[in-house]
Amino acid sequence: MTTLNVDLGERSYPIYIDGGIVNNAELYQRHIKGKKVLIVTDDNVADIYLPRLLAALSGFECQHVSLPAGEAHKNLATVNKIYDVLMQNNFDRNCTIIALGGGVVGDITGFAAASYQRGVSFVQVPTTLLSQVDSSVGGKTGVNHPMGKNMIGAFHQPACVIADMDFLDSLPKRELTAGMAEVIKYGLIDDLEFFEWLEQHVPDLLNLNKAALAKAVERSCANKSRIVAADEREAGKRALLNLGHTFGHAIENAMGYGNWLHGEAISAGMCLAAKYSCDLGLMPAADVARTENILSLAGLPITPPKEMTEDKCLELMSRDKKMRDKTLTLVLMHGIGQSFLCNDFDQKQLLKTLKLAFA
Amino acid sequence: MTTLNVDLGERSYPIYIDGGIVNNAELYQRHIKGKKVLIVTDDNVADIYLPRLLAALSGFECQHVSLPAGEAHKNLATVNKIYDVLMQNNFDRNCTIIALGGGVVGDITGFAAASYQRGVSFVQVPTTLLSQVDSSVGGKTGVNHPMGKNMIGAFHQPACVIADMDFLDSLPKRELTAGMAEVIKYGLIDDLEFFEWLEQHVPDLLNLNKAALAKAVERSCANKSRIVAADEREAGKRALLNLGHTFGHAIENAMGYGNWLHGEAISAGMCLAAKYSCDLGLMPAADVARTENILSLAGLPITPPKEMTEDKCLELMSRDKKMRDKTLTLVLMHGIGQSFLCNDFDQKQLLKTLKLAFA
Repeated sequence: MTTLNVDLGERSYPIYIDGGIVNNAELYQRHIKGKKVLIVTDDNVADIYLPRLLAALSGFECQHVSLPAGEAHKNLATVNKIYDVLMQNNFDRNCTIIALGGGVVGDITGFAAASYQRGVSFVQVPTTLLSQVDSSVGGKTGVNHPMGKNMIGAFHQPACVIADMDFLDSLPKRELTAGMAEVIKYGLIDDLEFFEWLEQHVPDLLNLNKAALAKAVERSCANKSRIVAADEREAGKRALLNLGHTFGHAIENAMGYGNWLHGEAISAGMCLAAKYSCDLGLMPAADVARTENILSLAGLPITPPKEMTEDKCLELMSRDKKMRDKTLTLVLMHGIGQSFLCNDFDQKQLLKTLKLAFA
Repeated sequence: MTTLNVDLGERSYPIYIDGGIVNNAELYQRHIKGKKVLIVTDDNVADIYLPRLLAALSGFECQHVSLPAGEAHKNLATVNKIYDVLMQNNFDRNCTIIALGGGVVGDITGFAAASYQRGVSFVQVPTTLLSQVDSSVGGKTGVNHPMGKNMIGAFHQPACVIADMDFLDSLPKRELTAGMAEVIKYGLIDDLEFFEWLEQHVPDLLNLNKAALAKAVERSCANKSRIVAADEREAGKRALLNLGHTFGHAIENAMGYGNWLHGEAISAGMCLAAKYSCDLGLMPAADVARTENILSLAGLPITPPKEMTEDKCLELMSRDKKMRDKTLTLVLMHGIGQSFLCNDFDQKQLLKTLKLAFA
């Protein structure tokens, strides 16, 4: 088992990575202080994994709640359902909430834990590649507002994360592929060596080679936690994690959430960021080609959806949460592994790049 | 103008105390970084004070929302109304939310600020004595769940607190009196000198002597902030602030929220804590008498409501949020200014004391 420590002072926590560790009772005993535990999961995951988790938690007083699956239910009403179960079962401040599921379950559960009695302990058991490499690191929790994604939430760090590679065996192929977009992102941001390793190992990952998956998850989490540790509250450097996301969110939004998976939209978004960086004379064309090649190899889209226009894209980008008093910050690249933040970019060239991409 | 600094490391903030400072534009300019400001107030306060606050904020882009007044509206649905206004007006992370009102407005607004886009800046402008001495210090924000008070919330420190003594001129007498309970509490907890000053100055305070009020608010806030600074997340010492509250919450709850004001219930609750401490042989009878005398002088109740029984009281106490895995912690006293935490108390004697008090 690999243990990766996310270094955040008194809020530091370990990520455990291996196959079969969802059953490891000792890990839960180490990190759960009270007796009462609520497991929050969703209808897709509950049938397969809930019995195994309950078995590992035999020493605790467990309740569980299964949420309807999907982004459409990531809202305050669903959080309220969790509060109801906690209150009905007299859960006090000393309780622990476990999120067993993908990013949506983790985000909702994390926010419930952050806000129940002003904050209780929680443990993440992410069951998708995307949530293992992304939403389980960084402490971002939250739900959607009808007018925007992730607009309501809190920063709340878990007590630990248990990333079991065996979950990926039952993950739909399309979701595994979507998760690969975020893995590749960590290479693009600031880790050329990892990018080169990925160029060799994408087939192993898609074939569910457990050692390769564990390495990819570990390196992604290590890279993310290094960036988060330097900027826990997203004042600066953490924004590098949004590589491809300003374009990607616009795509997700334009297509209707769930039609393009997050990772798919981010893949096309990273290609747009690469092309724009190249058009500005910052990134070599060869690096754009390598970026497109590896994403293609993983089975991800490298062009935005045909249904979308450059005007729609720009309009949606301007509404992005990362706008500070009307200044949009983009993540651009000088090359693979050389990303940087830019809020003083060439608007005209952006329009030209997008016109070509959306033609 | 008195400035009191609440020392919480990078989350430190000043409390400004004086008459007429709600109009002081410079204070807002000093603490508000972005351009967009949302003022949250309630229907009682809006007519009198909103125009004055808006005038002082002429350099900002202001929106305002007025909530229905009262504890009955302190819930997630009301927080959602605030999110709606923020989203409809494209408020980004750089915005500031100002709470103009009493404790309910402050708690709701603080939680909206804590959770909108995972936390934005907020400024407290408390308009009641209770909120000036209590809810504006300590960073506790939150709303009620149908099954319990303050069950949903966050710790979120304001950028500053502006405590204008002139607000108290228009405060209903009953609310001024209720606020006095929390002021007197700070003497009882650990400040005999302040208690003795209050014994001399209760009439001045009730007569709205501004210098006396400013001193009472300053000393209360200083005492509270000293305790909070030592224990921001309520792991230990901060629980001293709950003197009278475990009994008091049971009274509020039994009578239906709003029928007994919070301060009234806390007054009767502090008398119960004093009597129980005395019955245990910890607190001199003379100190119990002084406690009852000063609360009476302020016009506060010193006995619990006739409608309530000791069994109801015990049942409601056992449901208190401050229970940790079934251990109830009470704040008891060795004397005035000598409070301490006790979770290993004599249950039999408690029943006896309550039987007598509720006879």
